[in-house]
Amino acid sequence: MAEPEFWVSVGSTYSYLTVSRLPAIEAATGIHFDWRPFSVREIMIEMDNVPFARKPVKAAYMWRDIGRRAAMYGLAPKLPADYPLRDFDRANRVAILARAQGWCREYMVETYRRWFECAEPAGGDANLRATLAGLGKDPAAIIAESETEAVGTAYRAATDEARRRGIFGVPSFVIEGELFWGDDRLEDALSWLREGQVKPQTG
Amino acid sequence: MAEPEFWVSVGSTYSYLTVSRLPAIEAATGIHFDWRPFSVREIMIEMDNVPFARKPVKAAYMWRDIGRRAAMYGLAPKLPADYPLRDFDRANRVAILARAQGWCREYMVETYRRWFECAEPAGGDANLRATLAGLGKDPAAIIAESETEAVGTAYRAATDEARRRGIFGVPSFVIEGELFWGDDRLEDALSWLREGQVKPQTG
Repeated sequence: MAEPEFWVSVGSTYSYLTVSRLPAIEAATGIHFDWRPFSVREIMIEMDNVPFARKPVKAAYMWRDIGRRAAMYGLAPKLPADYPLRDFDRANRVAILARAQGWCREYMVETYRRWFECAEPAGGDANLRATLAGLGKDPAAIIAESETEAVGTAYRAATDEARRRGIFGVPSFVIEGELFWGDDRLEDALSWLREGQVKPQTG
Repeated sequence: MAEPEFWVSVGSTYSYLTVSRLPAIEAATGIHFDWRPFSVREIMIEMDNVPFARKPVKAAYMWRDIGRRAAMYGLAPKLPADYPLRDFDRANRVAILARAQGWCREYMVETYRRWFECAEPAGGDANLRATLAGLGKDPAAIIAESETEAVGTAYRAATDEARRRGIFGVPSFVIEGELFWGDDRLEDALSWLREGQVKPQTG
């Protein structure tokens, strides 16, 4: 049985909700996801999929909706967070490297926390330094390695793999080939994994 | 206290889920929504908001997601349904008239059912004739009245009112000025109505 996949791309706003709540769900259920960073932006540009930029009414709703749902999950972000991110590629290249080294989950949680709760944009110097140091890494060495061609190749390969999965946005979950898109579909994905169908939440 | 509002526009695919399940929720909870038809297309064109047209990968996902969630709700649509609708304005003008006469909910439920379950596109002759006759109406007379300037004025006024609410898509719910977008936010809206906050579903 294929491991459940969590496809994520730093820069996505709704992914804050998933990144922040998934580790506790993994711990409580024993279900572990493979956290898969990639460039959702590249795919969205190909598809002319522009969810919030140049859509101020929809963007205003997004922050309100994220705020309500964050409160439901016991999170306390300072909204709106910096958006769009300038250094999303840098943030995701570090994530690619982190996955290869086995600390992608921890990096994602902390870089999103600092972005949404401490006003430090992900991929920016302040965020990266504090996040990496907090994980016991050497920030300068990690950032330098994230800029190598090997990491760039892995980043593009991950994006190609996401495209083959039919992924068009994040957060997305893949359960045995079945795609679920959106933080609000995480429960559907878990239900699919357990029962092979989507069932109502039971609390 | 303002009546909860359900803003809907025939032509929206996800609204099938809401239209089909909301009456039972209204009956079970005693919470009644004002069903408000309008032209979401006019607003989406203004905002350059194109969710599925020219986005085949996202459209394919949409049908799969609707199918999974329809099954969760005990619905059995034949997917994909005809989309996009040709006669959505006609379908919505009949809904505007129906609301003025007090049978909007019944019309919506039946016209969506025939569209999604019987392959009769909403707004089309077959759908309208069967839907209206089933509600004890004279189809020819209702269709003729829906084409009057008075109904056109009411349709535009409803769309203006939706725009003032900040609505950019459907289904949408407005609870005391608080906007919720998407069939998957109906539970959030109900939670907001009862508790003034979004809380997890309890089954």
